[in-house]
Amino acid sequence: MTNAAAAFSSLDPHPLPPAYGQLASALREANLLRSTGAVLTWDQETMAPPRGIEHRSRQLALLARLQHERTTDPRVGDWLGELEADRGFIESGSMEAANVREARRDYLRETRLPVEHVSEFAEVVSNAQQAWIGARRDSDFPAFEPWLTNIVALTRDRAALLGTPEGGEPWDALADAFEPGCTAAHVTAIFTPLRARLVAFIAEIAGASRRPSDEFNDHELPLETQQLFVRHVIARLGFDLSRGRLDTSTHPFCGSTHCHDVRLTTRYDLRCVNDALGSSIHEAGHGMYEQGLPEREIGLPSGTAVSLGIHESQSRMWENQVGRSRGFWQWCTTAMRSHFAPSCDRFSVDELYGAANVVKPGLIRVDADEATYNLHVMVRFELERRLVSGALSVGELPGEWNRLIKEHLGVTVPNDRLGCLQDVHWSMGAFGYFPTYTLGTLYAAQFHEAARREIPGLEDGYSRGEFEPLLRWLNAGIHAHGRRYSSAELCQRVTGATLSAEPFMAHLEGKLRPLYGL
Amino acid sequence: MTNAAAAFSSLDPHPLPPAYGQLASALREANLLRSTGAVLTWDQETMAPPRGIEHRSRQLALLARLQHERTTDPRVGDWLGELEADRGFIESGSMEAANVREARRDYLRETRLPVEHVSEFAEVVSNAQQAWIGARRDSDFPAFEPWLTNIVALTRDRAALLGTPEGGEPWDALADAFEPGCTAAHVTAIFTPLRARLVAFIAEIAGASRRPSDEFNDHELPLETQQLFVRHVIARLGFDLSRGRLDTSTHPFCGSTHCHDVRLTTRYDLRCVNDALGSSIHEAGHGMYEQGLPEREIGLPSGTAVSLGIHESQSRMWENQVGRSRGFWQWCTTAMRSHFAPSCDRFSVDELYGAANVVKPGLIRVDADEATYNLHVMVRFELERRLVSGALSVGELPGEWNRLIKEHLGVTVPNDRLGCLQDVHWSMGAFGYFPTYTLGTLYAAQFHEAARREIPGLEDGYSRGEFEPLLRWLNAGIHAHGRRYSSAELCQRVTGATLSAEPFMAHLEGKLRPLYGL
Repeated sequence: MTNAAAAFSSLDPHPLPPAYGQLASALREANLLRSTGAVLTWDQETMAPPRGIEHRSRQLALLARLQHERTTDPRVGDWLGELEADRGFIESGSMEAANVREARRDYLRETRLPVEHVSEFAEVVSNAQQAWIGARRDSDFPAFEPWLTNIVALTRDRAALLGTPEGGEPWDALADAFEPGCTAAHVTAIFTPLRARLVAFIAEIAGASRRPSDEFNDHELPLETQQLFVRHVIARLGFDLSRGRLDTSTHPFCGSTHCHDVRLTTRYDLRCVNDALGSSIHEAGHGMYEQGLPEREIGLPSGTAVSLGIHESQSRMWENQVGRSRGFWQWCTTAMRSHFAPSCDRFSVDELYGAANVVKPGLIRVDADEATYNLHVMVRFELERRLVSGALSVGELPGEWNRLIKEHLGVTVPNDRLGCLQDVHWSMGAFGYFPTYTLGTLYAAQFHEAARREIPGLEDGYSRGEFEPLLRWLNAGIHAHGRRYSSAELCQRVTGATLSAEPFMAHLEGKLRPLYGL
Repeated sequence: MTNAAAAFSSLDPHPLPPAYGQLASALREANLLRSTGAVLTWDQETMAPPRGIEHRSRQLALLARLQHERTTDPRVGDWLGELEADRGFIESGSMEAANVREARRDYLRETRLPVEHVSEFAEVVSNAQQAWIGARRDSDFPAFEPWLTNIVALTRDRAALLGTPEGGEPWDALADAFEPGCTAAHVTAIFTPLRARLVAFIAEIAGASRRPSDEFNDHELPLETQQLFVRHVIARLGFDLSRGRLDTSTHPFCGSTHCHDVRLTTRYDLRCVNDALGSSIHEAGHGMYEQGLPEREIGLPSGTAVSLGIHESQSRMWENQVGRSRGFWQWCTTAMRSHFAPSCDRFSVDELYGAANVVKPGLIRVDADEATYNLHVMVRFELERRLVSGALSVGELPGEWNRLIKEHLGVTVPNDRLGCLQDVHWSMGAFGYFPTYTLGTLYAAQFHEAARREIPGLEDGYSRGEFEPLLRWLNAGIHAHGRRYSSAELCQRVTGATLSAEPFMAHLEGKLRPLYGL
């Protein structure tokens, strides 16, 4: 045994330099603090008593400060410098070398933000959360306006501290935290033609002579059974409930403490189980990515998701390519009938499949169908880009929001609760985040097209409740690599092509044209 | 306004020295870390998915280490020295001076424990928790024995590091963390005569010709209604649910993050609502103490409970002096009938009051009645004292446990699940903790006797569901002072006497003699 181990070790052409172990320990400790904050944030959204929030904000601010101290420790810079000087190690193409590359990226970014800024930001957004919840409930934008003004000012400070990339704009520096290398120019290049195609296609749908029945989306089902049903579905798709939870919150999210502790939330509408079903499958898609990250790499870049765009590709694929497919509904109709018996017996597979694919321009992004969803994202991108540049003031936001929603979707916003107060992101200071939803939607379609090519009978399996082949394929091709490859590299490796809107439009038109008789 | 404020300020004879502000900031930051650990521990016991526990242990170990670094920071010692040299400040009798005294006490204690010990202890007990849960479920002491052996060894190290007080024994150094100044000799001096009186009284009860009916304690009631009912009762007693929660866990506890975030747990027995009722009222008693601590002092000794004995006096008083009184049951019978209608209609007030006061020697401490409860505590005290001194090995524990339970309570322990695996404390490394239950029971009776003297019609009020006079009296006399006074000083101030077992025996005999026709 000892000899064999020694022989194996001597075969390794690049033994790890000692500084790597020191760097890895420091990163893992910073991750313990990050993941502690993740538990506290989840708790704040799901469990904490209302009066405890102020103290919670102070706890989160302290954790953010401590994490920042660790990620910006000058010794991290020293270890990185030492490792980068070891060319044999760096050019080995190993996961460890990729970790050094990614750790350098994070270090450069973090060292640009002074600890006071990080701490203030964390405390302001934690308190702003509560203000947003109240303002949204009461549709009272003026109550939230001072908070958002403060957050936008801090965000502009942050963009200035991070520095605008050459030839770019301040928004790019913010987006880079969510989607490395993402720029407003690149997003615009994808969004502009896509918007034109979507607006034209939605107009075509609006004029269609046939349309799926919407009846099931106004069919009351009891809360407790909805909860059991949704849990059954995500477990069947592959979300491991012994390594995660599903709870209720105002805004559905997926929080990750560790690959063995992944927490999803959803919300329930008694009259539309598809609401909780869609959002739970979506969050479970995020959750299966987190659960699929390699356990021994947790705390290092190799144990972390690539980007929000790639994260969203996982949630969108399970939500749309799987959860809105004809095959899925063939399996799901049976599951639904047995859970809600006899309340769902009268709906056929085709009626349920149709109801999950109704296209109807509306006011709320998270309720939007696959065709109109991306237009909501485009509106937010345009607005936040202008808020960050200073071209739009916070006071002008509701008016501009309402104007753009009308222009893109043809609907009139009656109040700010259904308008610019609907999303949690800006109250969390997450500017540069929204476009990753559409990028993820495009990646999802492109990845799923590749999975269909590579897994024989993939979609037939869905109709029998067989989802494991897709999950295993995603585990091996995407989840297992952590941040080893960039989004662009991963897309090329998995699909053999660069990101394009074609697979998404093919998916959308291929499904909706028959349903609408176009 | 400004002039008035200046005038007020100039009336203060002892302006706070600058070192006080620095000390207070450091203590408050350590408390943010402590309270973060409290959220994570609560989450581990109530919410965390099973596979997430290992990562949780690492998070808790890091938090314990960071908290320890702060509480042992040499600057804390410098600030304390500087403040102690300011005689005018120290002798002012102010709350701030008391904070310096208590902070010195904590500092001396904490600086005796090296960071490696604290971190190892935290990680071992966090993992041991899961081992204990499994071993208890399977009644498998050998599975838990290596964990407990490890914990006892670490505990003996801890006692040695803390140092035995002059004329004392190692156990004293451990107990001091829970009950400042508590010694095995003092506990023995109280326990020995009390044991004799209790054993004699229980024998008298066993021979009584009359006894209350136990029928209600085997009366099945639905879980959901039990949950609503218990919540209703603790809210009526005064536990503020906008500043706290009530959840379910294996072992009931009260966790405190902040006076505005106090989390209780209980457990439910379908055939005995008195189980959840008693434990919820008990934990709510702890919770009302935590909610009653002064908000602006949180993080300082003046915003912290005096000791576990005093903490237990609050839980015991609400559980026993209130929750097992004839008056309480007059109110509670109506509440119970309306919640469980018609299932409880046939029980009279006297039957329900009697059922809550049945004396029956049994195996489980937390299920024990008021008369036999303290004998359980005495057994644990004797065993842990010997484990800590080395006179008893962990392997001998089950046999000794069973022997002492038989000797004190006359019952035979059939397996370790109902024997030495029943309590969570030792798996948490909490040696020196158990006697505080009986000390608290004695304080509870003595405090309540004082409340009866001072609040006219106190117990008549219970029969009308009026519990606020007692809570306000406890808020003002006990909760508001934090650690300003020691247990002994507080007892003297509130009751005008030193701690004695007389009020407890008077309470017990005064209630049980009529019920048993003695």
